[in-house]
Amino acid sequence: MKFKVNQKDLYNGLNIVRRAVATSKTLPILTGVHIKAVSNDGLILKATDLELGIEYRIKADIENEGSIVLPANQLLNIVRELPNEKIDFNLNTDKWQAELKCLSSLFKINGYDPDEFPNLPEVNENAEFNFSAVKLKDMIEKVRISTSSDETQPALTGALFVIKPEEVRMVSTNTYRLSYIEADMKTNTDKNVEVILPGSTLQELNSLLEEEGSAEIVIDENYVKFKFNGIVLISRLIEGKFPNYELVIPDEFNSEFHANLSRLHKAVKRASLIARLDANIITLKADNNLLEIDSIEGSSGYAHEEVNIEMNGNEQNINIDAGYLLDVLKVLDDEEVKIEMIGPLNPLVIKSEEDKFIYLIMPVRSQS
Amino acid sequence: MKFKVNQKDLYNGLNIVRRAVATSKTLPILTGVHIKAVSNDGLILKATDLELGIEYRIKADIENEGSIVLPANQLLNIVRELPNEKIDFNLNTDKWQAELKCLSSLFKINGYDPDEFPNLPEVNENAEFNFSAVKLKDMIEKVRISTSSDETQPALTGALFVIKPEEVRMVSTNTYRLSYIEADMKTNTDKNVEVILPGSTLQELNSLLEEEGSAEIVIDENYVKFKFNGIVLISRLIEGKFPNYELVIPDEFNSEFHANLSRLHKAVKRASLIARLDANIITLKADNNLLEIDSIEGSSGYAHEEVNIEMNGNEQNINIDAGYLLDVLKVLDDEEVKIEMIGPLNPLVIKSEEDKFIYLIMPVRSQS
Repeated sequence: MKFKVNQKDLYNGLNIVRRAVATSKTLPILTGVHIKAVSNDGLILKATDLELGIEYRIKADIENEGSIVLPANQLLNIVRELPNEKIDFNLNTDKWQAELKCLSSLFKINGYDPDEFPNLPEVNENAEFNFSAVKLKDMIEKVRISTSSDETQPALTGALFVIKPEEVRMVSTNTYRLSYIEADMKTNTDKNVEVILPGSTLQELNSLLEEEGSAEIVIDENYVKFKFNGIVLISRLIEGKFPNYELVIPDEFNSEFHANLSRLHKAVKRASLIARLDANIITLKADNNLLEIDSIEGSSGYAHEEVNIEMNGNEQNINIDAGYLLDVLKVLDDEEVKIEMIGPLNPLVIKSEEDKFIYLIMPVRSQS
Repeated sequence: MKFKVNQKDLYNGLNIVRRAVATSKTLPILTGVHIKAVSNDGLILKATDLELGIEYRIKADIENEGSIVLPANQLLNIVRELPNEKIDFNLNTDKWQAELKCLSSLFKINGYDPDEFPNLPEVNENAEFNFSAVKLKDMIEKVRISTSSDETQPALTGALFVIKPEEVRMVSTNTYRLSYIEADMKTNTDKNVEVILPGSTLQELNSLLEEEGSAEIVIDENYVKFKFNGIVLISRLIEGKFPNYELVIPDEFNSEFHANLSRLHKAVKRASLIARLDANIITLKADNNLLEIDSIEGSSGYAHEEVNIEMNGNEQNINIDAGYLLDVLKVLDDEEVKIEMIGPLNPLVIKSEEDKFIYLIMPVRSQS
């Protein structure tokens, strides 16, 4: 294997595939990136931790074809520090050692036999459709916050992805809060497909998706494949049963109010500075076009905030986890936020985008 | 105690004194900031961990005088999130609770009895002089890198500060490398004063000193006081004997070369990416106007770099710790760097600022 590649192209490509590199050293070869030089086609970079796999192509002048697996972090660190010039790559297959030359720098990096690197799984078509990248990113951002970190309930550590003939949905919950978001779109499916995307996959997708273009999505029983911007990302799906979210979302309310998003966000953030020193519980009291936010008076002190609102319905009073409210206020991008309440023992509901996004926070029983 | 203070002024002041706040909770009151309201004089903020103390004054409208100690991090976090408006401060001395009001926010913060807060030590004049802030910052930056982290030799964890009638010096060493820097200046002393400044004090001074103005320095047997930009910083001195640095600095050499600082820095940084995976040892070979930098060929690979130099004297070959070379290349700001060498068993010497700054790196014995 022998080729020339631009420092910038290689750095960019490594930066993309490194997101699938294994962080555990149980299988050392998985901490590497698989590099394949193909004549007239450039380099194919590939990484996988067996849960997530990413493949990305970059252009290069290939003199001799071949493959190698090189330690990903080490290669990335070296390429980052090289000048933006051509890098000469040369492979010694006897000891799987790559030689990189760039101006007055020379590196020899010990790697692994590429035949021992696992193939990324094939994903058979069960559902296949195209989706706007910006919409996908937005949905992911809004469900990502509600996934659970409790590994004993694997289904809750991911997000349910529902594909219907004319609609897609994502749902996540840790049982104390829930994110639900839907988008109208014609998919190529004639049946309902429901799968669970791992939380870590949502995170990598959120980082890699850009604000433009579209993503091609292919789903089968065990895997999902996303193709966008030249990136192929394949993720294992989570097995298990996702709870019946439709039963949880209230369809009526007693009171609703609108508040300025930025003012509400700042007020909750400040109240949480005191509340988080105890259990991060705050009391919301909405009445008479005024929202009062109180921390419980604890050993470290007390916080009280007031925000003007436009309100319809009865006076309301509810205790919630300030962190759950902050998480959603951070990802909303409207100027106003709409909040619906039923009573102190029912979830508080935040809606946006003409109710296509619904966020539930379960109340905390009063501690007094 | 009752006063009004601008959010920005208070935030700025807390940000300065927080550097002396105790991080350990052994004495909880030391995790607080002492606030004293003095009519016609504003607020005096004060913090100390008993090693380092900082005092800073800010303007405020004082209605009633008084004092309180409030938890520093909590107060800083709250003030950071408040809008840039007047904050109304009100003290309940019965339970040492402060009430802060700012627009529609209200906070009650539980604090401590200010009479239990230690006074900052008085520093009696032993040597007292003024010093350019930018020069002091530069000296600190260059000796800070060579202090030791080995607490069993306390004298080496700080920097020797030498005040002579017409010169000041700072010296630090961890026995494997040494920083020496001197500056010409008329001090008000007629004798030589030598004290050891703690490494942590150097770090805080480096952060607080700005590029302009001058610093007033007062030194006695046990403490040093720096006054600059309205900040009073008092630090305990390290007791102990500093090694005889003058014996270590060579006054002759066999070879010297000049290299472009930025090119040398980048080359050493790249070579270190491989070298640091083993013991971070690199070999420098200077000959024939070329400097070759090699990592030792280890299990992970090998790096070779070349840098053009202007050289006088014999060929040289030396093994050193790449990290020690990188540390000094980071703090130099000349375009060129001058390096002197005697032989493979003698220190490598880097000089700048017309030899007022001298940096020694001890060689590592060849491992082959």
